[in-house]
This record gives sequence, C-alpha cells and structure tokens, in this order.
Amino acid sequence: MRTTPDPLKAFGLQPIKGGITAPRGFLAGTAKAGIKYPNRTDLALLFSETPAIAAGVFTTNLVQAAPVRLCRERLRRSPSAQAILINSGNANACTGPRGQADAERAARTVAQTLHVNPRQVLVCSTGTIGIPLPMDRLLPAIPRAAQTLSPNGGSAAAQAIMTTDTRPKEAAVRFQINGCPITLGGMCKGAGMIDPHMATLLVFFTTDAAIAPRALRSALRQAVDVSFNRISVDGDRSTNDTALILANGMAGNTPIQEDRPGWKPFTQAFCSVACDLARQVVADGEGATRLVTVEVSGARNEQDAALAARAVSRSLLVKTAWYGGDPNWGRILCALGYSGARFNPDHVQIRFDNRLVVRNGRQAPHVSLETLARIFKQPAFRVEIHLGAGKSSYSMLTCDCSVEYVKINGAYMT
Amino acid sequence: MRTTPDPLKAFGLQPIKGGITAPRGFLAGTAKAGIKYPNRTDLALLFSETPAIAAGVFTTNLVQAAPVRLCRERLRRSPSAQAILINSGNANACTGPRGQADAERAARTVAQTLHVNPRQVLVCSTGTIGIPLPMDRLLPAIPRAAQTLSPNGGSAAAQAIMTTDTRPKEAAVRFQINGCPITLGGMCKGAGMIDPHMATLLVFFTTDAAIAPRALRSALRQAVDVSFNRISVDGDRSTNDTALILANGMAGNTPIQEDRPGWKPFTQAFCSVACDLARQVVADGEGATRLVTVEVSGARNEQDAALAARAVSRSLLVKTAWYGGDPNWGRILCALGYSGARFNPDHVQIRFDNRLVVRNGRQAPHVSLETLARIFKQPAFRVEIHLGAGKSSYSMLTCDCSVEYVKINGAYMT
Repeated sequence: MRTTPDPLKAFGLQPIKGGITAPRGFLAGTAKAGIKYPNRTDLALLFSETPAIAAGVFTTNLVQAAPVRLCRERLRRSPSAQAILINSGNANACTGPRGQADAERAARTVAQTLHVNPRQVLVCSTGTIGIPLPMDRLLPAIPRAAQTLSPNGGSAAAQAIMTTDTRPKEAAVRFQINGCPITLGGMCKGAGMIDPHMATLLVFFTTDAAIAPRALRSALRQAVDVSFNRISVDGDRSTNDTALILANGMAGNTPIQEDRPGWKPFTQAFCSVACDLARQVVADGEGATRLVTVEVSGARNEQDAALAARAVSRSLLVKTAWYGGDPNWGRILCALGYSGARFNPDHVQIRFDNRLVVRNGRQAPHVSLETLARIFKQPAFRVEIHLGAGKSSYSMLTCDCSVEYVKINGAYMT
Repeated sequence: MRTTPDPLKAFGLQPIKGGITAPRGFLAGTAKAGIKYPNRTDLALLFSETPAIAAGVFTTNLVQAAPVRLCRERLRRSPSAQAILINSGNANACTGPRGQADAERAARTVAQTLHVNPRQVLVCSTGTIGIPLPMDRLLPAIPRAAQTLSPNGGSAAAQAIMTTDTRPKEAAVRFQINGCPITLGGMCKGAGMIDPHMATLLVFFTTDAAIAPRALRSALRQAVDVSFNRISVDGDRSTNDTALILANGMAGNTPIQEDRPGWKPFTQAFCSVACDLARQVVADGEGATRLVTVEVSGARNEQDAALAARAVSRSLLVKTAWYGGDPNWGRILCALGYSGARFNPDHVQIRFDNRLVVRNGRQAPHVSLETLARIFKQPAFRVEIHLGAGKSSYSMLTCDCSVEYVKINGAYMT
C-alpha cells in the first residue's frame, strides 16, 4: 500500500522470519485449553533459555486485570523474567481476589513445569471481562504447551493469542551493533480498534541483545510511543493492555546503555518492529476496510498536532464516512475544531493523497466530489492536514468504522 | 417506557399541542426550497407578532458556521429578535466569506418580506458542511414560507427542519405565574447522536412570558444544561449547534427576574420542555434501537459523576453491546476505569433495571447472563452505577450504536 511506507524499510532494515522466536534462546509453545474458542489453540508459552532482563508498559485504566497487577508487581520488584504465559478468550479482569489467585496459580504451574523460579514467570490474559478463568482446563494445558516449546514456535504463538483478530501479527529484524548480530522479534494481538479507549492489546517483544534494565525500559517506552500510541488505540486504557520485552543477552554484545554506542541502532530496530506490528493491528482492525494515515502539520506545538490527529482518527462520523467512501471533508474540519488544538479555521489546508481539497478552511477550487470519493474508496489513503498555526507535526494510523465492526461488537460475550 | 419517566409529568405539567406556535403571537411557515432533499419542506420561518427578547447558546467549536456567527453577533449587540429563518439540507459551514454574505442576504430578504428590522432576524442552517447555500433556490422560497405563516404552523416547521431525523420533535406546556397563564413551546432537530462531539442540533423555544433579557439567558443556559447537555450529544461541539429562545411578553405577566417570584415555575417549565425534546432526540438517534438511562451515584463530586456517566454513554463498545443485546457489563466497568472519575473498582456496584449485576467490582452471585441479555434486548432500560466513593450523582440519556447508524453515516454527503 503505497500510502503507508513499510516501517522496517524506512530504516533500511530487512525483515526476517520467526517472530518472537527469531532471537537466540527463545522458544514458544502452544496448547488448546478450550477457554472460550472450541478446537483452536488459546494458550501460548514463551520461554527464554536463560533468565532475561524484562520491562513492561501497562494500561493506566483504574480497572486493571489480575495478570496486569501480577506483571506490574513482579517487574517492580525485579526487572527480569524467563517465561510468559498468555491465554486468549478470557481477560481475567474484574474477577476479584479469585482472579488474582488464579493468575498466581497459573504462574506457579508454569514455574513447576519449566523448573524456573516462580517469580520469573509473567502471565497475560485477553478476552471477555468479568468471567473467572476456567482453571480446570487452563492448568492441565500448561504442560502440554511446554511439550511443544520450539525455536520455531513464534508463529504458532502469534496465532494462539488472537481474539477477534483475523490474522496473526508478528515481525522480526536482524541488525548489527559493533559487528555483533542482534535479533529482535515481536508479536501482538489486538483488533478492537475503533474506540481508542478500548483496544485490548497485548504486545510481546524478545531480543538476544544484552542491555541494561533501565535502558530496556526506556527503549520500550520509546517504541510504544511511536507505534501503538499513534494508532487509533489508546494503548493505556483497556483493563488488560500490556507490552512486555525480554532481553536475554545471548547475542553477547557489550550491554547497551542509554545514549551510548549501540543505543541508536537498537532503538531504531525496536521502533521499526513496533511500528510494523502497530500497522498490522490497524490493517486488521475489527471490520476495517480502509487503512488511513492522518498527518497533521503546521501546529503550534506537538501536543496540538497530536490532539488534532487524534480527534480526526477517533471521530466516528469521519470513520463512517471513510467506510462509505463519502468524501465528507467537513467532518474532518469539524473534528479539528473540537480537538482542542489552537488554529484559525480560515488557515487550514487539507489534502487527500496529495490532492488539495480544503484551502483556507473551505473547499478548494476545481475539486470534484467524484475524485474525492474515488480516493476514499481505496483500501489505503493519506489525509494531510496543515493547520497553518506553526511548525509542529504528528501522524497517526487509523481505519474506518464499518457495519461489520458493529456486528462483531454487538455479539462478543454471548 | 417505564424506565424513562416523562419529564413534563415529573413537574406536574400537562403537555399541550402546538409546539413553537403554542404561545400567543407566534406564527410559523414553511416552504420547499429544494436545497438538498427533493420534494419536501426544508425551510421554516418563525415569526413573533411583536419584537421579542431573545437569548442563544451556541457551539464552542473553533469551526463555526456562518449562521452561528450571525446569530451570536446580533444577540451580542441586542438581545432581541422577531423572526428566525431555518433551513435544512445545508449547514452553511466552512463556506468562507461567501457563506457569511449568504446568511446576511437571507436575513435581509426575511426582513424585507416581513417588514421587520433586518437586525431582528436570525438565521440557522443544518445539513452538509462545506457546500455553499443554493441562494437562487433559497431566496425565492422565503416569500412562499411567509405566505404560509400561521398560528398552527408549529408542527410543519418541526418537520421542515429535520435532516436524518425520522420524526419531528416538538413540545409545549401551559402553566401559571401569579394567576397569569404562560405558554412555552419548543422544537428541535438532531439525530446524529452517537458520537457526542458531532451532534448537529438546532433547538428553538418560544414563550409569551415577559422576562428580563438577563433572566432569559440564564434560564436558557439552565434548561440546556439539564437536557441537551445530558444526552450523549455534546451540545457545544458541532459547527452549527444552536439553541434559541424568543420571549414576546404577550402573556402580560410582570417581567420575570432571576430568583424573584415566577422564576421557579418558569425555569421548571422550561427545563421540562427541554428535557422532553432531548429525550425525543435520543429516542430518534440515528439507527437507535434502545434508549438507555445511565445513572451514576456515589461519586466524590458531581464532576466525577458526570465524567463516569459520559464515558459509559459514549463508549462505542458499550453501545454496540447494547445494540447486540450482549450483557457485557465488563465494558461498562472498563469505561468507568478510564473516565477520569476517582473510585476504587472493588467498591463499584452496577444494576440493570434494578437487578444487581456487579457487586464489589465483580459479577454478583446468582446473576444469569440470560436474564441480563433479556434486559439489554428491551427498547428501553436503566443502568445504575454506584461508584462507592461519595454522595454525588449525575444521569444521562443515551442510545445504542447500530449497524443502521454506520450505514446512515457512511453515505450522507453523496
């Protein structure tokens, strides 16, 4: 899709296969636990052959799922982990003390099965809120998942963590730091994309790089900020949003420190993989039929640019117009007007795929609605907005809101 | 619908017929100007036999339609008016200096036709953004509308201002102040209800009460605050949102002043009519199949209660679950969690139509999803949320988000 440049190629990185098991020393396994979906894998186990440095970014929702509390607490005590258990079909959220005990029990079972320190196990859940985990089915599936652990298990794991996703999402790259080859891989799930406050996103990264815990945390924040925080998903807000990275050091490089040699190539690779995954998420947005890049420039500062980009990316009336291929540029101006960004409406310019549509806040001359409708009916296009108020910019990836989205979300629990 | 008590009856007021022409001295007329919709009335003219005290509340969107600027400017100079021209099908927004000139020209034509002072004419537009008004069709329709002016024209006017509304919305009451009978009527249009930032709402009230300009402004703000600001419409935000009231004093009462005798019955009647109209708007929300009352109590203060009620009323995932009759209470808790309201999730209780569903932040015992699904499949129900954090409360009216909504908004402009 010409309008959304490949984030890996943008940094001259070649994608490789293998996802989260592409880096040395990482294995993944899966099992069918029958949690919600009949007859498909719904449990993934990620294992590092040696204890790894770990970092996490979590939802800021007041209502936090039990596994989020467990991960947050464990990483606060010690920034390291050796295994992550992930289930789909049930979020283990709003499940009270029982949910907390279930999460801990699942972690203990993983530790016993893999003979690792129980504190080195993290757990993540995604799916329906408010229903206790079926532990009688989940626990026996853990040893079965462990039996399938394999250095080629990345794709199967990406498959197992899906909920309403229609395809698995994974990426990996290899790059060098001081002549030492480093690999970084990732996978994620997430498809409930339309309302930015509601995405239930889980993201996992692995790398064989050696890196200081503090640098790893900083790199993860940076990668999430340029990727998952710039799609129309408010990564902070669901009850279960979690992004984790394990770095096991098996590449043997000198441990990476912030702003020292190696920091820049590492964060570039990390950001690229994160952006690639984020793009896969939007492209697979529930019911999405169009992938839209919203680029705001000419803002007074970056915050204003972000406010404007987010308002357009989130507006339901804008999204439904995109779905219908309706060239309703007025709704974009309207969303800008309530975004909170400061600008003079009479100075706004809007382009669709390089075509000037709005000049000085009103329809540009010689614009035909038919041409615009043709642009809006493409599977991917770009909306460029110049606020005429300054020099800052911000861009986001978003998608349309379709009839299919409503159907999917009208019958999720039952 | 048992779960949404009639706002008029709540204050012991009897509804009367006639809408905006129910009060003495108000006439309304309509015409077919062919602005967008073929073969239906799309122009309404409201006329008071004597100049009236006027007040307005307008959108706070940075992008303001030409008629909004005109009304705001005229009322700022002098709080009085004798006629209002309203067209549907075209918002005259984002139309630059030409749009401004068109609005003024329309007002001038009304003044000439009705032999009133041009400054005593207000104009309102609603419909598609960004397309200039077809003045060649609009202007000749003004004298035709004037010819139909009638004290029974309220319902026809309510019909003419509709856009995607499926039914006209009007209400009127008669009450007494010091033995003097006073009538207050209203009409409105608005149906794009799902995204609160985007409602394109026009609201008009008329009364024969004598009232001081300052008191009228205050009463209008109060009436809008308890009605249109409490449905899932952010009355402030579209390019065209306008609420106007004309008070022509023909009832002959002692002019009403704030907090003096007569103030309370007047504001009660005004609020009741406004709430009645607001309820009609939600019930006719684009594609809406369910009318939902969201009542938040137990908040630390009213602001927190409002944040919580708004987050639930606006959440697309909550609304799609209602549409599907899916008893997904977890999405409600999730929306509360990101609302910004301060509470402990473990203290939250939620009831659907008096049935306890969530206790201490998790599913209450003996709740069957089948029963809940039955509640969620009703045309109207109540969601009561107790945050367990204080004593403040706030309630809103909202609706579901249906497949039909997306279809309507996917093909509005073309």
